[in-house]
Amino acid sequence: VNELALIDRIRRRIPAARRSGITVGIGDDCAVFRPSGAKEDLLFTTDMVIEDVHFRRATHPPSAVGHRVLARGLSDIAAMGGEPRFCLLSLALAPWVDRKWLDAFYRGLLRLAARTECMLAGGDIARAGKVTCDIVVCGSVPRGRAILRSGAREGDGIYVSGALGGSALGLEKGRGAAWKHHLRPEPRLALGRFVRERLRATSAMDLSDGLSIDLHRLCLASGVSAVLERDPPAFRGASLEHALHGGEDYELLFTVKRRTIVPEHWLDFPLTRIGAIRKGSPGRVELHGRTLDPLGWDHFRAH
Amino acid sequence: VNELALIDRIRRRIPAARRSGITVGIGDDCAVFRPSGAKEDLLFTTDMVIEDVHFRRATHPPSAVGHRVLARGLSDIAAMGGEPRFCLLSLALAPWVDRKWLDAFYRGLLRLAARTECMLAGGDIARAGKVTCDIVVCGSVPRGRAILRSGAREGDGIYVSGALGGSALGLEKGRGAAWKHHLRPEPRLALGRFVRERLRATSAMDLSDGLSIDLHRLCLASGVSAVLERDPPAFRGASLEHALHGGEDYELLFTVKRRTIVPEHWLDFPLTRIGAIRKGSPGRVELHGRTLDPLGWDHFRAH
Repeated sequence: VNELALIDRIRRRIPAARRSGITVGIGDDCAVFRPSGAKEDLLFTTDMVIEDVHFRRATHPPSAVGHRVLARGLSDIAAMGGEPRFCLLSLALAPWVDRKWLDAFYRGLLRLAARTECMLAGGDIARAGKVTCDIVVCGSVPRGRAILRSGAREGDGIYVSGALGGSALGLEKGRGAAWKHHLRPEPRLALGRFVRERLRATSAMDLSDGLSIDLHRLCLASGVSAVLERDPPAFRGASLEHALHGGEDYELLFTVKRRTIVPEHWLDFPLTRIGAIRKGSPGRVELHGRTLDPLGWDHFRAH
Repeated sequence: VNELALIDRIRRRIPAARRSGITVGIGDDCAVFRPSGAKEDLLFTTDMVIEDVHFRRATHPPSAVGHRVLARGLSDIAAMGGEPRFCLLSLALAPWVDRKWLDAFYRGLLRLAARTECMLAGGDIARAGKVTCDIVVCGSVPRGRAILRSGAREGDGIYVSGALGGSALGLEKGRGAAWKHHLRPEPRLALGRFVRERLRATSAMDLSDGLSIDLHRLCLASGVSAVLERDPPAFRGASLEHALHGGEDYELLFTVKRRTIVPEHWLDFPLTRIGAIRKGSPGRVELHGRTLDPLGWDHFRAH
């Protein structure tokens, strides 16, 4: 089973609900809910982080695990141009977890929560064989303004923030700047709002599974294809493979109309044009005249 | 570590967030969020269901697992008098899961979702050693009207719906009416609204972990104690132990003001007065002149 196919099968079985208030359902970075009478739409995203799948006890400090759990969810809010409101955490603890680990885990999570004004409002606690976290983050955008994956159109420019491949490199090396980037990715919340308000991005998503598969997904959702005009900017020391297929960088991928002027830098990182949207086979991504296979992280492919 | 103590430690570390919109945070059945300008408050609850903790592959049919996952969340919405709006499902699949199991799981979940108009709006999918589900359910109530755990006051009558202990009995026997009740508990959504609108309940919660511990929690949240005037109504064949301490019945426990008239039956099940709220040591529950220990399910006590 591949992940996209599985999600598509589930989606096709869901009847449209009367008065649910859901305006965007399964398949984007967040679900979008419109409360009756409210000025804002609410964004909801959930992300699981599992011991020995997404982190290892021996290599990942507990405060970094807590940080990463929340950062994943916040990154989805950033990708839609939203502001965080609150989060819910479900946490299943393994037998080896002690008070020290747990305190450091919450310290990492709650520091990022305080800094991004994303209040921990509830959750669930259970026991399991492996530590399993599921974070739900709620964010808000002005009504009807969430940036979707599905809005990219022919001629739009394709951009990424920052440099790619650092997280994959860091996981290999286990030290240095890339490792730090792997342990404490910074969700691009302020950039997401800038991209929505000022650049009026036509589509966006966060780079959680790798550029090759994430751009493929954006193109599928928009019914378009993409041509990369250059190699993506790589994190210092990262290879082209890292930059194309490595996940967990949590940079933003976004498209803007042809004539939109995008600054080369924003805050302390670059915004780089890497290609353009084309008509053509939906989901196809081309680099140097060839199809770029979506080799990023698919949770259902054998790795 | 005990669960209540752990939750309390987490709660004390969370700074109140400016403008979060959260009016009720950690510690009730649901978090309550007030969207700016909206007429309704939104309720959020998350519940984990883990293979070999909450169900077993060999004994629980997959459609029942799907049903139970959503029923747990809906029951929290019922306990606050809410109507379901949408849900999000995070699902980690074990290596043994095949398409047949997965289809039946979603069939069970989506049937209950359709019947209760609770649209599946998103989620996450991952791989893990054991099947791990985390359901988030969003519900709504008129602004300021959620029934909380903390509103019970001296003199209030204590009521339960239906009969207790059936789920624990069913799990022991593995067949018959009690087993059916264990496999497909019915969240008391309509009753929750009736209790809120007509009976103007002062407090409520759902019986997920057992009457003894759940009533203890309600009393703690309200700063009161409780005297049980009679044994709780038991499911046919269930013992007093089952009825007092068995979890997963998902009936409603609620309190009403002294003079409120509660019908003896509602739809096809009884509403039974089992005791009264008293001043006294917060959290204490008395039965037949003795303290009733909270022996229900605590996720952190060795069982």
